[in-house]
Amino acid sequence: MGARVRMADPADPRLAELRDLNRAESRPDRPGGSGLVVAEGRLIVERLLASRYPVRLVAGTAARLDELAAGPGLPAGATVAEVDRATISAVVGFDFHRGVLATADRAPEHSVAEVLAGARTLLVLEGVGDHENIGALFRNAAGLGVDGVLFGAACADPLYRRSVRVSMGHVLRVPFAHLPGGTTTWQRGLAGLRERGFRVVAMTPGESSAPLWEAMAAERVALVVGAEGPGLTEHAMRACEVRARIPMAAGADSLNVATAAAVGLYERARTLAGPMGQPRVT
Amino acid sequence: MGARVRMADPADPRLAELRDLNRAESRPDRPGGSGLVVAEGRLIVERLLASRYPVRLVAGTAARLDELAAGPGLPAGATVAEVDRATISAVVGFDFHRGVLATADRAPEHSVAEVLAGARTLLVLEGVGDHENIGALFRNAAGLGVDGVLFGAACADPLYRRSVRVSMGHVLRVPFAHLPGGTTTWQRGLAGLRERGFRVVAMTPGESSAPLWEAMAAERVALVVGAEGPGLTEHAMRACEVRARIPMAAGADSLNVATAAAVGLYERARTLAGPMGQPRVT
Repeated sequence: MGARVRMADPADPRLAELRDLNRAESRPDRPGGSGLVVAEGRLIVERLLASRYPVRLVAGTAARLDELAAGPGLPAGATVAEVDRATISAVVGFDFHRGVLATADRAPEHSVAEVLAGARTLLVLEGVGDHENIGALFRNAAGLGVDGVLFGAACADPLYRRSVRVSMGHVLRVPFAHLPGGTTTWQRGLAGLRERGFRVVAMTPGESSAPLWEAMAAERVALVVGAEGPGLTEHAMRACEVRARIPMAAGADSLNVATAAAVGLYERARTLAGPMGQPRVT
Repeated sequence: MGARVRMADPADPRLAELRDLNRAESRPDRPGGSGLVVAEGRLIVERLLASRYPVRLVAGTAARLDELAAGPGLPAGATVAEVDRATISAVVGFDFHRGVLATADRAPEHSVAEVLAGARTLLVLEGVGDHENIGALFRNAAGLGVDGVLFGAACADPLYRRSVRVSMGHVLRVPFAHLPGGTTTWQRGLAGLRERGFRVVAMTPGESSAPLWEAMAAERVALVVGAEGPGLTEHAMRACEVRARIPMAAGADSLNVATAAAVGLYERARTLAGPMGQPRVT
């Protein structure tokens, strides 16, 4: 277990990486893809401790550190700082009431092959540039049984602080990888999924799409969603085998991308469970 | 059509109700339930103009006002202020780039009987205290064919500015009413729904709940959801006929309440559409 050190001085250099946390997301020294992983609050810190990301620092109140020590245990090799709420608030720059936070280095990303190994249900994202949506997509993916997430082009960083928080830490659990290529070439990776036996389903509104429930009965499914507003590119839709839509009421807008994905993934889980006399997919 | 008046002075008293919009939600002179209805951006302003709420003021750039005049028309009896972006930004207190906003008085709320009339699918909320979740619930309800929303106790104000915005204006379209009673008595309204032929379905995780897809095949369904975390009260669950759950993966959290409702409402829409040989509910 890491040695636990009391720190009472907000200027303590060992706490430097927590300084001005609200501004950390826009720091020029932390460009997209290279920032530290930050976990806030007990639940997400526990998921970080259980993850493959090398923990650097855990800073928390005595009570929170005791809980972690009694639960998953505190990481060896990391700095474990016992701080009171006033100190941690002064360091991070806002009233930090969650009692514990932690940082970790990024680990090398999984390969696409690693994400695919054994997977039956994948979620593929294109053009989802909003960190909150990325987080919500991972939360929904984890809840609804997705085996892995693949990124096409133009998506936000899943390990950004806000994505981690909104995902409830599930970005640290659900394997993900980036398909290679740029905005008009990454879609070749979808052909690769089809070659490996995945039915690649584009979620897209419109009359040329089948109702969602007609699309999911396959041994392996990759559900492809795009950003709200623009939706999937034509390149992406052409690389998919099936187009599926959520039937929408007249006069309504499309759903938020994370909500739409949750509906699609629920339909996938329902199909796999084989309810009401429908053939169970095996 | 309302007479269009150019206003270039941010101190113009005719624009007073837009002043410091970001602070307006916490103004002591606008307690919950009595504030003005505020619509921001073209889409939501159009929904306000098409609603039953009496419009007081429309303030926008010349281009945006022209669009409204050519589309739904500008409301007679309301002040129509032509302003440039700098003026409107100075009034509301932040850079307002959407080009148009509008205010309306609240209209008397629908009665429960009005919301029920002709409805086949209702959404019932308990303890949803977050304005963003209320907005998202209305957006999802509108998209997935809900005929009306009923509020149990302890819910946030659906006409709060933030709820209106997150709902994409659908709180102005989907009829809603509050069931009478307090935190432990409002649930009698659920018994009233059952007497009127609604299957009242509690969405709640846990082994005693049936999978969602077994719960929705009824002529009339009222789907009842509670806040994330605490979920529905025992009082509410006891007043429901059926408990239904979204099957969740191991190690996952529950879904966000608006996301869970979207999944439930999708399942309801799917059941009504009667796909794949299942009997169409009539």
